[in-house]
Amino acid sequence: MLNKKKIFNDPIYGFISIVSDLIYDIIETSEFQRLRRIKQTGLADYVYPGANHTRFHHALGAMHLMSRALDNLREKGHNITNQEYEASLIAILLHDVGHGPFSHTLEHSLLNGVSHEIVSLRMMEVLTKKFDNRLDMAIHIFTNTYPRPFFHQLVSSQLDIDRLDYLKRDSFFTGVSEGSIGADRIIKLFDVVDEQMVVEEKGIYSVENFLSARRLMYWQVYLHKTGIAADEMLKNILKRAKQLAKSGASLPPAGGLDYFVHNQVNEKELTQENVLAKFTSLDDYDVWAAVKQWSTANDKVMAYLCTNLLNRRLYKIKLGNHPFNEQHEELSQRLLTQGIKRADLPYYISSGSISNAAYMAHNQKIRLLKKDGQVVDIEKTADLPNIKAMSKIVTKYYLCWPNDLTLPAN
Amino acid sequence: MLNKKKIFNDPIYGFISIVSDLIYDIIETSEFQRLRRIKQTGLADYVYPGANHTRFHHALGAMHLMSRALDNLREKGHNITNQEYEASLIAILLHDVGHGPFSHTLEHSLLNGVSHEIVSLRMMEVLTKKFDNRLDMAIHIFTNTYPRPFFHQLVSSQLDIDRLDYLKRDSFFTGVSEGSIGADRIIKLFDVVDEQMVVEEKGIYSVENFLSARRLMYWQVYLHKTGIAADEMLKNILKRAKQLAKSGASLPPAGGLDYFVHNQVNEKELTQENVLAKFTSLDDYDVWAAVKQWSTANDKVMAYLCTNLLNRRLYKIKLGNHPFNEQHEELSQRLLTQGIKRADLPYYISSGSISNAAYMAHNQKIRLLKKDGQVVDIEKTADLPNIKAMSKIVTKYYLCWPNDLTLPAN
Amino acid sequence: MLNKKKIFNDPIYGFISIVSDLIYDIIETSEFQRLRRIKQTGLADYVYPGANHTRFHHALGAMHLMSRALDNLREKGHNITNQEYEASLIAILLHDVGHGPFSHTLEHSLLNGVSHEIVSLRMMEVLTKKFDNRLDMAIHIFTNTYPRPFFHQLVSSQLDIDRLDYLKRDSFFTGVSEGSIGADRIIKLFDVVDEQMVVEEKGIYSVENFLSARRLMYWQVYLHKTGIAADEMLKNILKRAKQLAKSGASLPPAGGLDYFVHNQVNEKELTQENVLAKFTSLDDYDVWAAVKQWSTANDKVMAYLCTNLLNRRLYKIKLGNHPFNEQHEELSQRLLTQGIKRADLPYYISSGSISNAAYMAHNQKIRLLKKDGQVVDIEKTADLPNIKAMSKIVTKYYLCWPNDLTLPAN
Amino acid sequence: MLNKKKIFNDPIYGFISIVSDLIYDIIETSEFQRLRRIKQTGLADYVYPGANHTRFHHALGAMHLMSRALDNLREKGHNITNQEYEASLIAILLHDVGHGPFSHTLEHSLLNGVSHEIVSLRMMEVLTKKFDNRLDMAIHIFTNTYPRPFFHQLVSSQLDIDRLDYLKRDSFFTGVSEGSIGADRIIKLFDVVDEQMVVEEKGIYSVENFLSARRLMYWQVYLHKTGIAADEMLKNILKRAKQLAKSGASLPPAGGLDYFVHNQVNEKELTQENVLAKFTSLDDYDVWAAVKQWSTANDKVMAYLCTNLLNRRLYKIKLGNHPFNEQHEELSQRLLTQGIKRADLPYYISSGSISNAAYMAHNQKIRLLKKDGQVVDIEKTADLPNIKAMSKIVTKYYLCWPNDLTLPAN
Repeated sequence: MLNKKKIFNDPIYGFISIVSDLIYDIIETSEFQRLRRIKQTGLADYVYPGANHTRFHHALGAMHLMSRALDNLREKGHNITNQEYEASLIAILLHDVGHGPFSHTLEHSLLNGVSHEIVSLRMMEVLTKKFDNRLDMAIHIFTNTYPRPFFHQLVSSQLDIDRLDYLKRDSFFTGVSEGSIGADRIIKLFDVVDEQMVVEEKGIYSVENFLSARRLMYWQVYLHKTGIAADEMLKNILKRAKQLAKSGASLPPAGGLDYFVHNQVNEKELTQENVLAKFTSLDDYDVWAAVKQWSTANDKVMAYLCTNLLNRRLYKIKLGNHPFNEQHEELSQRLLTQGIKRADLPYYISSGSISNAAYMAHNQKIRLLKKDGQVVDIEKTADLPNIKAMSKIVTKYYLCWPNDLTLPAN
Repeated sequence: MLNKKKIFNDPIYGFISIVSDLIYDIIETSEFQRLRRIKQTGLADYVYPGANHTRFHHALGAMHLMSRALDNLREKGHNITNQEYEASLIAILLHDVGHGPFSHTLEHSLLNGVSHEIVSLRMMEVLTKKFDNRLDMAIHIFTNTYPRPFFHQLVSSQLDIDRLDYLKRDSFFTGVSEGSIGADRIIKLFDVVDEQMVVEEKGIYSVENFLSARRLMYWQVYLHKTGIAADEMLKNILKRAKQLAKSGASLPPAGGLDYFVHNQVNEKELTQENVLAKFTSLDDYDVWAAVKQWSTANDKVMAYLCTNLLNRRLYKIKLGNHPFNEQHEELSQRLLTQGIKRADLPYYISSGSISNAAYMAHNQKIRLLKKDGQVVDIEKTADLPNIKAMSKIVTKYYLCWPNDLTLPAN
Repeated sequence: MLNKKKIFNDPIYGFISIVSDLIYDIIETSEFQRLRRIKQTGLADYVYPGANHTRFHHALGAMHLMSRALDNLREKGHNITNQEYEASLIAILLHDVGHGPFSHTLEHSLLNGVSHEIVSLRMMEVLTKKFDNRLDMAIHIFTNTYPRPFFHQLVSSQLDIDRLDYLKRDSFFTGVSEGSIGADRIIKLFDVVDEQMVVEEKGIYSVENFLSARRLMYWQVYLHKTGIAADEMLKNILKRAKQLAKSGASLPPAGGLDYFVHNQVNEKELTQENVLAKFTSLDDYDVWAAVKQWSTANDKVMAYLCTNLLNRRLYKIKLGNHPFNEQHEELSQRLLTQGIKRADLPYYISSGSISNAAYMAHNQKIRLLKKDGQVVDIEKTADLPNIKAMSKIVTKYYLCWPNDLTLPAN
Repeated sequence: MLNKKKIFNDPIYGFISIVSDLIYDIIETSEFQRLRRIKQTGLADYVYPGANHTRFHHALGAMHLMSRALDNLREKGHNITNQEYEASLIAILLHDVGHGPFSHTLEHSLLNGVSHEIVSLRMMEVLTKKFDNRLDMAIHIFTNTYPRPFFHQLVSSQLDIDRLDYLKRDSFFTGVSEGSIGADRIIKLFDVVDEQMVVEEKGIYSVENFLSARRLMYWQVYLHKTGIAADEMLKNILKRAKQLAKSGASLPPAGGLDYFVHNQVNEKELTQENVLAKFTSLDDYDVWAAVKQWSTANDKVMAYLCTNLLNRRLYKIKLGNHPFNEQHEELSQRLLTQGIKRADLPYYISSGSISNAAYMAHNQKIRLLKKDGQVVDIEKTADLPNIKAMSKIVTKYYLCWPNDLTLPAN
């Protein structure tokens, strides 16, 4: 029996229970509590006003689904020790703990070339020290160095618990009902063969639906064009701040963010505990507070970007199958005529590309367990021609420009 | 203002309002009320115990979605007269009124070569007489002889209101959550160009999700193998009854069903109002009552089929990509050895094929309205490779055999 | 591990698992399978077209909630043996197995003074014989003769698993969202003190909400006036059938129902296995088939009742706080003038009363477990004045009369 | 037809449409956009992690329900001009626009004796100037000076659109399912008699359920004890900041909040447009940013409060029916012994009372429209004894104290 009982309300799953004291204590750490202040989908609430859910809730939800997946595997006769059980829950609970403010949006704006997974690992290492190495097995699972690979695959693969929760959760809070998936059913159909994760063959349509739903969520939510415009604006704000800092220009103070504006933080710096601590003290609130402060900056570019982001007067944006080189050039000319300096153009006009594939045929495959015990890769199934079709990487180009300008015809 | 106010509770849409007195009166007819006694998905409740919803509710639900679709088109500036509005609602309300007991399952067992659409039309003709020809425009819309084709396309096409409601409804009541679709969003994106229905381009992912969900519902629900086994059993019961009737053997009385057991009813007979009336007095209750009566028949085959269907001791069934000729033959031999007569074999062993394509590329296409006003067929969209993939017709073969026999290895 | 794996889809709980082979086998019996053909809420689908859910699904759902309740009690440290666990599931699974066609509506029309609980018990006794007495503990729990009373209280009390499921289920399928309750939360807060069921004190508002929701469901669904009118009509049909049978008049055959029309079946007769078997072969389909047959009866009263019920031309009905004696009398006079025989009046005019109390203060109370370990009756809680208020029995009187007559002013 | 089309996704209602260009423009103002950064339920996400929804979404949702209520009244034959329609939508859209950071929690911490309704009115006055007085009718409706009082009653009364939306919304996002209400049904049953709002009598159970749900939400969410502890902590932080400011002690800068820390702002000051502008530039982000800054303050009390709030090491709290005077005193003594200054005690120990009544019998009543056209107060309905019961004001006392102290027994 637990000493520290606790249940969390979840509008999606009803109740989420904490199954061990160690997990309770991890949730109580400031490292984990800060996830309450980091939104799961960055600025997506500018498109879907319900999307205010946090990394904190996603982490709990994923942990909940993990426990159901493991219960199911045990019912199917697989031996999973209590230690493995707890370690898997911790691994999924902390898989995203390294996310900084605005999650993916600022992933490359605050740190230099350090993915959130690396930060998660650093933070797990700090936590395992704090808890007498009791997170070590979770770290092995997270880094795929644990001898039974299916645990890692549940945490991270093309059909993992992480994705099951975030699709359900993001679909729920955005109200994009088409993104909803049959997570319960998929979990019931998980199985393990030779220590590798497989899905029972009768789950193929649920898996196909999962891939299709994920693709839809990418285009409709994660890569929604208005969301991209907002993201570009915020990224440009950080870029400008760093540029101004470098040039010695003064900016209103921005609390904890200032350190990352004035210093380049690479993977190496992050190994210093005090630098990591600075990063892990950041959250969305620091960024919005900075944006509010900087909206009064003397720098015209900065004031422009911050004021417009705050009031949701976002860039206009166009998406297409080809780069918008000519229109980019023409807009630049127009802005130069209006007196914008050439060096400042990238803060007014942004271009780039986004791409997405529902299923990466070259990564580790999703495998089906047939009734006769055979295991096959999912795209080999005769009646799922669209799995193959969904492996195609779709790339789109975008062009962002100021709200008050009209795009020239191309 | 209405004289006859009425709202129906619907667990899916909340409330369904009746918008005109004529529609109220149509719903009150015995022709329409009988749909309360015909399940939407036949014997699917043998697989999904929640699937007890009726044609009655589906018809009301489709009418509700139609009114929202028309409201939306009006908001977009399309002129729809009040008469057209009411006629469209009547057309969708009655589109399935010709369904007999167990809907599709017995569609070819009770009548000879008469589709439910033909019966619906006959019944609409009876009703329009009863209501002073006030259903005439609805009939034109239903038969696609009304000059503005988009009304018909809303009632019947590859992306029609009928499908939007039945997918939502069947998914809701079966609990197969993956079948849920974004009907609201699709309806908001409907538009009309040159009197033809189109979907705004930004709806492509919702349309793709709709096609994918429909395909999933086919394999998971409408063509679920246990459901097919139950269907085969029921169809064989009717076949046996007709055969016994023909051979002069006696059967316990089966109420209204007896007429159709003893007479061949073709499209021609159905033009006689009294025969049509006989058909429209039938519902699921007549069939189950007959099955219960016939379970006590002297005919061993009949008693076998009825008792087993009642107690859900269904045929065993196997699905595959090729016909099961050898196993069929071997099972036949075994049954012959057990004393089953050769002529009775088809009542113990059933085989056949089912097929499904999510999108019929050769039918009238789903058309997208691009931002620049151009209209294109959906499969021409560059980033939807799987629409093409989903056009492939998938065929599967099945073999059904008695519950207490083991299938020989092939 | 189970030999007979099976999961049921449930739109409410997602999936319902079968936890033992014995339970699997009980579900497979014809006694239990027949519940697929008995609607949970009788004729309520005449008011709420979605209310076609069956006793079968309710029984499975209640079993599912029971397993969650027991899991929760085990987590709280209570010792529940595997045998007790299975027996509790069986007891709740079979608690309503004795319901006949149309559940409560015809409870007193087919049998004489035999409640459905008595029939359930008889059927459990038959089943335990069939299964080598393995249902004996379930029977003890059902009849409250098992030494640990909380098991019985979970099956049957003022806050039992039965009610939790039927409120959730009936609310879901009718679409009466206000009837929805926090079953998950209540179950998490169940506890056991001195082998008696209690609820943790912090659950008081959930319990209050449960009582309030139940009261609402009574007035809005179970005792909805249109539903009462339909019920009265059906009960009068059975009464008329019995009367005609007694007087020797001929009626079209009505299959399995005929036995109960021609014979008085009391508790004693029901102890004969063949009579019980006759009863347990009945379901809603027999009744509707009879109504359809009898709608062509020579007896004018019978034809009138059956035709009108079939086509949903129900009695008009009025509810009030006092009996409608004068209006009853005046309507009678009018019908007599129209040539209706005095003896037949009760088939055209029905009156009676219904009553309901959300909480029966004189029955076994709902008990709360306070933080300090004390157990108190719920109505003693200072801040729940309305629990007391809800204990008041509310009685209403109704008068039903033919559809085509206008009620005289009173 | 609209020039500025826009729909918002809402996980609760599906889609919310903007019905006029003026409303579109109001939503685009910075005054309204800031509501995106103010959570609906303050710190409730510390108890219910899903409760991150904003005032922005609530305002849109309430506007949506208002349009449905007005559509329904028009269908019932009430004349509502297009101008009245738009004005009602604006009134409900802006009814809460005056809320500052953390809504109710800090309502009395930032301003002195100025309710959020007053601030809303001030902001509406600013907006109507900006939009050529086109908000004037909305202001009349909001202040109940419009000649047709039912419009105001829809915006603000004991059964208003505001409450319908917030109960549905808060229940949805917290996952407290018992708080869900039948808003659709209640809205369908709204009517108007003598320009006053009434509810059709058959809605009494829905109204009762609404009152009961609201009461539950108060105790379970709005007055949840952990939420109160968090609120107290935050209020004490602001109090301390003001005290330090007054005493001239230095605090790390807190952006826009500093003005309100250093100045007393009463209703009078707020009439100055620049002061109002300062207030309306504030949101939750300023407060959290300040808490983060102040967590590094030299002042021990401040650092203590901020660090603990950030890391969710909240006060312990106890609720009871009587003040905790003795325990308060004993805790104080203990803290004094530990070296806490007497003047600082109120920052470590907080006590007070909360109270709630589901229905205020002395305010303007909820009125029912009986079938015979009579209008009666709801508590006069014979069969709703608990409405009266729910009018009782329930008061509870609380005591908060530091996390690391044990409460002395009383």
